[in-house]
Amino acid sequence: MMTTILAIVKQNSALEQLRADLPADVKLIMADQATASELAQVDIIYGWGEVGKKILAQPQHQVKWIQTISAGVDALPLAQLQQQHVLLSNTSGIHAESIAESVIGMLLMHVRGLQQSVAQQAQAQWHKLQHHQLTTLKGKKLLVYGTGHIGQRIAELAEAIGMKTSGVNRSGHPAAHFAATYTMDTATTALVQADVIVNVMPLTKTTENFFAADFFKQLQQQPIFVNVGRGLSVDTDALLNALQQQQLGFAALDVVAPEPLPAEHPLWRQENVLLMPHIAGIFDGYMGAANQIFVANLQEFLATGQLVQNQVELQRGY
Amino acid sequence: MMTTILAIVKQNSALEQLRADLPADVKLIMADQATASELAQVDIIYGWGEVGKKILAQPQHQVKWIQTISAGVDALPLAQLQQQHVLLSNTSGIHAESIAESVIGMLLMHVRGLQQSVAQQAQAQWHKLQHHQLTTLKGKKLLVYGTGHIGQRIAELAEAIGMKTSGVNRSGHPAAHFAATYTMDTATTALVQADVIVNVMPLTKTTENFFAADFFKQLQQQPIFVNVGRGLSVDTDALLNALQQQQLGFAALDVVAPEPLPAEHPLWRQENVLLMPHIAGIFDGYMGAANQIFVANLQEFLATGQLVQNQVELQRGY
Repeated sequence: MMTTILAIVKQNSALEQLRADLPADVKLIMADQATASELAQVDIIYGWGEVGKKILAQPQHQVKWIQTISAGVDALPLAQLQQQHVLLSNTSGIHAESIAESVIGMLLMHVRGLQQSVAQQAQAQWHKLQHHQLTTLKGKKLLVYGTGHIGQRIAELAEAIGMKTSGVNRSGHPAAHFAATYTMDTATTALVQADVIVNVMPLTKTTENFFAADFFKQLQQQPIFVNVGRGLSVDTDALLNALQQQQLGFAALDVVAPEPLPAEHPLWRQENVLLMPHIAGIFDGYMGAANQIFVANLQEFLATGQLVQNQVELQRGY
Repeated sequence: MMTTILAIVKQNSALEQLRADLPADVKLIMADQATASELAQVDIIYGWGEVGKKILAQPQHQVKWIQTISAGVDALPLAQLQQQHVLLSNTSGIHAESIAESVIGMLLMHVRGLQQSVAQQAQAQWHKLQHHQLTTLKGKKLLVYGTGHIGQRIAELAEAIGMKTSGVNRSGHPAAHFAATYTMDTATTALVQADVIVNVMPLTKTTENFFAADFFKQLQQQPIFVNVGRGLSVDTDALLNALQQQQLGFAALDVVAPEPLPAEHPLWRQENVLLMPHIAGIFDGYMGAANQIFVANLQEFLATGQLVQNQVELQRGY
């Protein structure tokens, strides 16, 4: 019996290599070239997008497994997948290096005056900043919400720089490279003392809108707030207000709500903000790394109907 | 007998603390407030600038020691100081953290697409970059010219990120956090393989114009070139040409020749360049750290006429 994989990803050379290595009874079709009858026969979805939603909306769909190329799965209909016993796996882990380097890069850019340097360069202007306008990350206090792969790599790099690292996770359990860990409820002392706060949590019912007015009004050090998790974990209006009220000193945001950010949105023009267009996780070897996870899972799935890695707990959402 | 210190530094609170702690027979005067007769009686210069040159040009000057607030002493008349037995000390060591964080910040800014993000933000545009446009520092090869305090801290942070570190110094001696070290003459293999080249050497007769056409034409990986040493170690025209000929992929420059860079200089408009206005070493605690060195040396100088730390070898130039 033929197994059909629908790839909802951009054409890329790593995907062509994957296609060339498939067993004879496995067919890989591209979403933008698939016919309606092919879409009706999809067993496995690799990637995600509108066409995936359309397939799942069909009562007779035969999808048994979805492998995303993202870590976050908040865009998928998790309740439906659970009810219909569709397996779901993500690529959690492959973004750790690129996101951690992006976070440290954004922080260093801010404390070392690189944003001002870029602005000066655009105008061919050479003005030294004053000593008090620049600082170092060494010795500063970092609090990371989310202590998984990505959070740990952020903490590892921060530790090497000499920052004091604390983390927040559901149970407050210890995690590598965090000197201390807390639950969301017990983090208050670390929070009010933090110089840098990073969100890298998945978007779930618990984390949605977590960074809102009540959160920001606790802050005492005018910290830097970094979001490389999901935009919807932050109340954007409250964030803007926290910047305007100087509860926050600076915000570095790879993700925002809404996304893409409309041209007329005030966040574009707010001072003390650095915006990245949701690219902190991508890197040149991305699709090769995603394929490794997909191929390992595919071999197991074809043999036993199960997955070997990165399976998402549908109830939990990550 | 009264000892007179001339401070050629900007007014700052750390200096006022220093003045308050001076013995009764030591007077500290500010360069911008000193009278001609006071200038003729200066024993110690703290800082450096035009007024220092004017004092040393007087045949009857009585300067016995100059403590700079910079690491580099290339702006001072070293031959004259040697001939007249004037002691010289610098602040080498206090810039290690700020310069290393600036270097890693500039590198991460480039590989993680942050320059493009800033440019997009200025125009309220949200365009994701492609995977192949971004990479990570992890696994890349770093070659640092200069393995002193600053070079070692750069290598330490690079090592933590997972870069492969090599260094160059006069004798090729080992240095902490460098997996391999070379002399300028034996570095060729490491040089042609390097992904990132950093100059942090002092400006001396050996290093002046070292990074010139012959240097750049050896490169094979279109590496990133970072200069946080001195502008005159680089032939700016050759650097521009190396960027245009794609011998270099990118240049991140905190120092340039000439400095400040005139508004009409083509380097401002060259693609693939990041310019900082010679601020990589400064930070909020800078003058406090410089004062610590000055005070330690001052105590010894008043007691014995000698210095305890950071004395410059005038023949060598650092």
